[in-house]
Amino acid sequence: MAVYTDITDAELEGFLAEFDLGQAQSCKGIAEGVENSNFLVETTRGRFILTIYERRVRAEELPYFLSLMQWLAQHGFPCAEPMAGRDGAIQRQIRGKPAALVEFMNGLSVRRPTAAHCLEAGEGMAWLHQAAQGFAGRRVNDLGHAVWPGLFARLRGEAEALKPGLAGVIAADVEAIAAAWPRGLPSGTIHADLFPDNVFFQNGRFAAAIDFYFACDDALAYDIAVALNAWCFEPDGSFNITLARALIAGYERRRPLSAAEKAALPVLARGAALRFFLTRLNDWRSTPEGALVRPKDPLEYERKLAVHRAGLHLLDAAAAAR
Amino acid sequence: MAVYTDITDAELEGFLAEFDLGQAQSCKGIAEGVENSNFLVETTRGRFILTIYERRVRAEELPYFLSLMQWLAQHGFPCAEPMAGRDGAIQRQIRGKPAALVEFMNGLSVRRPTAAHCLEAGEGMAWLHQAAQGFAGRRVNDLGHAVWPGLFARLRGEAEALKPGLAGVIAADVEAIAAAWPRGLPSGTIHADLFPDNVFFQNGRFAAAIDFYFACDDALAYDIAVALNAWCFEPDGSFNITLARALIAGYERRRPLSAAEKAALPVLARGAALRFFLTRLNDWRSTPEGALVRPKDPLEYERKLAVHRAGLHLLDAAAAAR
Repeated sequence: MAVYTDITDAELEGFLAEFDLGQAQSCKGIAEGVENSNFLVETTRGRFILTIYERRVRAEELPYFLSLMQWLAQHGFPCAEPMAGRDGAIQRQIRGKPAALVEFMNGLSVRRPTAAHCLEAGEGMAWLHQAAQGFAGRRVNDLGHAVWPGLFARLRGEAEALKPGLAGVIAADVEAIAAAWPRGLPSGTIHADLFPDNVFFQNGRFAAAIDFYFACDDALAYDIAVALNAWCFEPDGSFNITLARALIAGYERRRPLSAAEKAALPVLARGAALRFFLTRLNDWRSTPEGALVRPKDPLEYERKLAVHRAGLHLLDAAAAAR
Repeated sequence: MAVYTDITDAELEGFLAEFDLGQAQSCKGIAEGVENSNFLVETTRGRFILTIYERRVRAEELPYFLSLMQWLAQHGFPCAEPMAGRDGAIQRQIRGKPAALVEFMNGLSVRRPTAAHCLEAGEGMAWLHQAAQGFAGRRVNDLGHAVWPGLFARLRGEAEALKPGLAGVIAADVEAIAAAWPRGLPSGTIHADLFPDNVFFQNGRFAAAIDFYFACDDALAYDIAVALNAWCFEPDGSFNITLARALIAGYERRRPLSAAEKAALPVLARGAALRFFLTRLNDWRSTPEGALVRPKDPLEYERKLAVHRAGLHLLDAAAAAR
């Protein structure tokens, strides 16, 4: 949660004057997203989210993210459509920072997903993958499997400091994952961060996906692997096979997985766990004491990684969903 | 800005089930108010602010604040009406903390008030004073003039640490204010914290007052004095007589001030500056390094206090508005 840029009524009025969306009726800074400042703006023409991009999202990458959201919305997928100004541009500026005004999406994210939620989320993800077909934008997954060995090399010391002996274990993971990483799986535009807080539901149905700022090109099944880690673990750290089956079955309602994709899920999920472990470890290390935003605990993903290292649950789940 | 309690979708659903206001469509934690957690909740029946009371607002005082808001809203004053549950109660609980659901108010606060805004705000304040007549609730102003000498005694050291020599100057203020404090002015329920961020405008007109958690019984003109300090100083620290005249003239559109009230404005404004200086100094001192919420700078009110110590501007303003 964060609002870094506190815009004034005059700045908001000036910003809205660049659009054909009426006058501001209300504006509330909202506690959503740790990287940007977000405001829920109601005008005489509708409700919007105004985002001011503060960090991490690089200005030169914004055209990709915003045009992806625009493409998806215009191809029937429920995501926030960026609004174009009178000049036709969707990427704009406030106080010299990149900014965009997007449609407000109704819906609520769930804290403890049920199998029914996982089924819907899986189907929503396949919908996203299908809707993105034909989108011309391209973005390399700069947090993908190719960068993990180098990222780990810089974080060895931190891993060992987190838990003695962990550096050696992770080194072996990095090697095993690289050796087993699948090639030639169907690929395309993926969300790459479809955690429960990035999915909205209404009346139990998938209503929207938000936060596309990790979207990139990669194996479609890798997106499922990220979601299996995010949706299908119990608070006690155990893997919930029922939720995993539901997520995969939901996905296959719209896009059946190939045998190669199903066979790859265990290593993809192990790799996805490594990815979030490494980036959280990096954020953990680089966050000063007493910072406004507390980084997420890397140990959560260390435990998920250990589950994947040990087990074959995902193969079972995929098989059962076949 | 702060959201201390992060409610889940299930908790929200359970909470809304206690009302007859439909199902949740969306819920956003909003960055408003440093003392409480606030959520903008949209249901199938309307938009509401859900407040979870975290600190400072004592649970035993909530019935006063909530019943005042209810009274004002039901007597035509534009403020957020607290919603009663099916059981008739407006004060409720979430996770063992006091909570309330109030109507959402449209409007925007202004960062740099113009004379037109001050005129509207002044009239809005008089409206509030009139609408509160007949309200049976009573609350002593526990940050009023009676407590300033004791509060200052505990903060002498901090005042001196802030600026060498300041303790002696403030001690003289405390004494001078106590000696000149008026008695017998018309009194009633006041807002006591009607800063620009607590007033909403729509199309340039006063649209609502929010944040009643300092409301209490005191001299009505003391409420004006608080607002003169909050609305009528320039960023460079100078007092803007045009804004002050507008605020008082706006007030008198609805409730003309007596000669005694006008005569008292200078000492009331000096006292109001002392009040905010002392409480900010206290918050400043008691906030640990690296805390999430940075307290407001006490020096802003030290400078305002110095202006009132030196000058007679307010008498002029009041006279001109007569």
